[in-house]
Amino acid sequence: MPSYTAPVKDMQFILHNVLNITASDVPGYSDLDEGFTAAVLEEAGRVATDVLAPLNAVGDREGCTLENGVVRTPTGFDAAFKVMKEGGWTALDCDPEYGGQGLPYLMGTAVGEIFVAANMAFNMYQGLTHGAYSAIHVHGTPEQKAKYLPKMVSCDWTGTMNLTEPHCGTDLGLMRTKAEPQPDGTYKITGQKIFISAGEHDLAENIIHLVLAKAPGGGDGIKAVSLFIVPKFIVKDDGSLGARNAVSVGSIEHKMGIHGNATCVMNYDGATGYLLGDLYKGMRAMFTMMNEARLGVGLQGYAVAEAAYQNALAYAKDRLQGRAVTGPENPSGPADPLIVHPDIRRNLMDQKSFVEGARALTFWGAHLIDRSVRMDDDAAEGLISLMIPVIKGFQTDKGFEMAAAAQQVLGGHGYIEEWGMSQFARDARITQIYEGANGVQALDLVGRKLAMDGGKHVLAFFDMVKNFIKDNEGDERLKGLLDPLKTASKQMQAAGMFFMQSGMKNPNAALAGSYDFMHLMGHVCLGLMWARMAKAAYAALDAGTGDTDFLQAKIATGRYYAARHLPACAMHLARIESGADPVMALEAEAF
Amino acid sequence: MPSYTAPVKDMQFILHNVLNITASDVPGYSDLDEGFTAAVLEEAGRVATDVLAPLNAVGDREGCTLENGVVRTPTGFDAAFKVMKEGGWTALDCDPEYGGQGLPYLMGTAVGEIFVAANMAFNMYQGLTHGAYSAIHVHGTPEQKAKYLPKMVSCDWTGTMNLTEPHCGTDLGLMRTKAEPQPDGTYKITGQKIFISAGEHDLAENIIHLVLAKAPGGGDGIKAVSLFIVPKFIVKDDGSLGARNAVSVGSIEHKMGIHGNATCVMNYDGATGYLLGDLYKGMRAMFTMMNEARLGVGLQGYAVAEAAYQNALAYAKDRLQGRAVTGPENPSGPADPLIVHPDIRRNLMDQKSFVEGARALTFWGAHLIDRSVRMDDDAAEGLISLMIPVIKGFQTDKGFEMAAAAQQVLGGHGYIEEWGMSQFARDARITQIYEGANGVQALDLVGRKLAMDGGKHVLAFFDMVKNFIKDNEGDERLKGLLDPLKTASKQMQAAGMFFMQSGMKNPNAALAGSYDFMHLMGHVCLGLMWARMAKAAYAALDAGTGDTDFLQAKIATGRYYAARHLPACAMHLARIESGADPVMALEAEAF
Repeated sequence: MPSYTAPVKDMQFILHNVLNITASDVPGYSDLDEGFTAAVLEEAGRVATDVLAPLNAVGDREGCTLENGVVRTPTGFDAAFKVMKEGGWTALDCDPEYGGQGLPYLMGTAVGEIFVAANMAFNMYQGLTHGAYSAIHVHGTPEQKAKYLPKMVSCDWTGTMNLTEPHCGTDLGLMRTKAEPQPDGTYKITGQKIFISAGEHDLAENIIHLVLAKAPGGGDGIKAVSLFIVPKFIVKDDGSLGARNAVSVGSIEHKMGIHGNATCVMNYDGATGYLLGDLYKGMRAMFTMMNEARLGVGLQGYAVAEAAYQNALAYAKDRLQGRAVTGPENPSGPADPLIVHPDIRRNLMDQKSFVEGARALTFWGAHLIDRSVRMDDDAAEGLISLMIPVIKGFQTDKGFEMAAAAQQVLGGHGYIEEWGMSQFARDARITQIYEGANGVQALDLVGRKLAMDGGKHVLAFFDMVKNFIKDNEGDERLKGLLDPLKTASKQMQAAGMFFMQSGMKNPNAALAGSYDFMHLMGHVCLGLMWARMAKAAYAALDAGTGDTDFLQAKIATGRYYAARHLPACAMHLARIESGADPVMALEAEAF
Repeated sequence: MPSYTAPVKDMQFILHNVLNITASDVPGYSDLDEGFTAAVLEEAGRVATDVLAPLNAVGDREGCTLENGVVRTPTGFDAAFKVMKEGGWTALDCDPEYGGQGLPYLMGTAVGEIFVAANMAFNMYQGLTHGAYSAIHVHGTPEQKAKYLPKMVSCDWTGTMNLTEPHCGTDLGLMRTKAEPQPDGTYKITGQKIFISAGEHDLAENIIHLVLAKAPGGGDGIKAVSLFIVPKFIVKDDGSLGARNAVSVGSIEHKMGIHGNATCVMNYDGATGYLLGDLYKGMRAMFTMMNEARLGVGLQGYAVAEAAYQNALAYAKDRLQGRAVTGPENPSGPADPLIVHPDIRRNLMDQKSFVEGARALTFWGAHLIDRSVRMDDDAAEGLISLMIPVIKGFQTDKGFEMAAAAQQVLGGHGYIEEWGMSQFARDARITQIYEGANGVQALDLVGRKLAMDGGKHVLAFFDMVKNFIKDNEGDERLKGLLDPLKTASKQMQAAGMFFMQSGMKNPNAALAGSYDFMHLMGHVCLGLMWARMAKAAYAALDAGTGDTDFLQAKIATGRYYAARHLPACAMHLARIESGADPVMALEAEAF
């Protein structure tokens, strides 16, 4: 059975050596000294290792069951959920006014990685609740907030997000769920929603569904959509639970992975709903928290890859098979450990350099969200909005690829469920699909984010890369990282130029290259992160602070990424510059 | 539930327009006229569509069960196996002396693709039998052949291959299974084998296990290994079944995919075995048929991707979601079909251009095996030996990637098991692992095949590409395919040169780039196949023969591959030329 240990040292390095958070002007960051963050992350790591990770395989094997309208979660989930609640982990970055601990989103993100890596399916019950909490926190009336938020912060009540219907996912304008206004100001919600994570389960007293539906008078398309609070049990004015609402689970889905999370078909049969936010502004309300939600999925991508990597590494050090081509390294044993073989090493370095780079990018993204939310910093808001499709799309594509790569290290054993490597790959697969499939992320990036606010955010990104290179090119030790980054950044600029020039004439020319651009930009982002990490590692080495082996390993891993992954940028550029013709040459009928 | 239709037209195009098989001098090819091959492939397609494909999901859902030593295959497998036997499909390319139909291996390959695509797990019962048949056919005594082969050709008896043990897979020298010689010339086989596909089941009267074991006197390593025939039921001299042998199934594995095939732990407790081939030459005997076995797995890689592609395509044409960026294409409907979107089109073209290219490469490979076996053509034997790790490693990596890409087209539905797309990805995953994990294929390619016979086969390959380009560069219409192929081929030569120069000093420098080289060469091979297919399509268009739309689609698909996939070669070369340092920089302890 796989195990998991929280990479606290790596996280501390990013928080303190790279982001230098205590010196930041973000309100709340000055409290986050090394001792404090280490204590929080280590305690989260203990819960993850001892409580959550052992349930990961259980959840996969047992799945959730539906009987007479009741969904049962896997053995042990209920007890573990109590541990999470009692430890205050569900309240970490929530508003203190509603019982939260008020820590920055960055800390919630770091702790979130630990819990997701240990047990992604389990962590979704809390993760979805946090999303619903955020939507009510931003859009709710004072009464709604007082009524729902304290119980959601504590996860006594959990939350859901209801968007998809059988005939529409991405194109929500086609939605059929209706909201009929009632004389008392409430609405009757009628329709069917699918793919509802944590839609029904036995972990909470109540479930607060947030449901998109069309109210009369708003027309037919996406602009008719409003957002409603639909509790499983009506909450009375005194906060106690009243009647069962007319919402029920139709079935639970059989999925490739995340079996421990109940993915439900939800039926609303004239259920009582309360308008959340403005009428006909449901999409805006639902997507207010989109940056956080998508960053959270991008985090899942690399967090599962981290867990898979840890187990592949342990196997590669333990399993004796073959001899090093340069001579035996374990001469007294019957064979050398797998890790002596260059192609195994390549595979492990691919995983390691991706996961650590993605962690840095995600933490930086969370830091930008803190700047945006806590300081109303428009530049940070613009930059993170630009990068969100990359964090979501690139990191989940690579996360799945790396989970499969980790599986490969185990050979045949990687294909056997008891070893747990298959589960990592199967669980990671969903991250490429939900919260906006990755093709939609690419469309968002190229079709919307690049040109947003006159293109100033992407120009700011280029400036940031250029200035970092300029400020540091005097340091010869960074050359192996900066030169490939400079090349990659220029390739990204050339791609942007191609889109501007050819996209005017033919929008398909830009969209045909959107997926490649998302990956190209992902590599540039990770190249920048690695250059920043290498710089921080050299600084610590120069200062004689920190663990020399650890810092040297960071630098070597960064050089690997620059040498072996940034060359992908030229390929993506070549594909982009081939334009729309190769992609669109065949008529649909000719397929 | 997914469906499957045999791509007979595409297969016919390769057999007759590209390979021009009836004009070939390979014995038996002159009988393979268009009418004959079409009839065979269409009939195989009917069996695949009507009998095998409907059982694919059943096999995945039910899996195999073990109770009291008896393994039950999924509902319907037994009846379908009878259909396969009675139709003579198990005997297609077997020796007529033992009841086979004697068709060339190429025809067996084409038919094999159809059956694998429809139901990979089911087809393995027959596929493993064919492998065991081949080993006995080549290495058996006349008595052994007479005793076992007729029943194996008909699949009244099935076969297995027993190599792996719990502590050793790739490094078979560590094997512990013992063979003790008996006074009557037989051996007592004792040990445990794992990952034995079709090791036990209810589809056949008898199971003929081929087992690698160590006989005394051969030393301790790989050279002590011999190959033994170990029947489940001893076969008496009159051909009737005698006593149950001391071989039993210990358990069946829970796997990520291919649930319909029983993957068994097999226990040999002093089981009676008969030496097959020479003592201590077991590895040679087992690997005689390696080219066929590995080509067969490379075929599985793209065959499953073909099935996945067909279903992704159907969904993309059917599912209405969003509007084309260039204006509505289905104005009377609520939305346009997915296929109008450039990124969906990119995804489908990736799949289509890979599958059709891989099919051409695999058929060409099968043709080379026919030349090698039926004509003792050493050049063909050398060339196919060089290409086998590419056909196995590259095609299965891409096959899995493309099955996952097909899954992505369905969005959330792709993750739900009932839609069947998850199964394609899960089934395809094993092809990267078994029959030599893909890292081992890369090692075989770079560590052995490149330098084999003084490097003459890879030089012959380069000449073939160069000559094809030279012979056709007068045709301007082929420029879009030949120019990228020329560049890619030069990059492959540069990589080979790098290996020669740096590998002398440090073998790790070659091995660190082996995986990239396998992919680089894979792209060159598919680039060559597409150039040949485009040339054949233009020839048919010029001659006014064939379906114009079909031929134009071939050319457009080839241009897509050249424009959007051959640029990967530069990336692989850059990685290769970065050498061993980035890969080996970290000591094992520093991970």
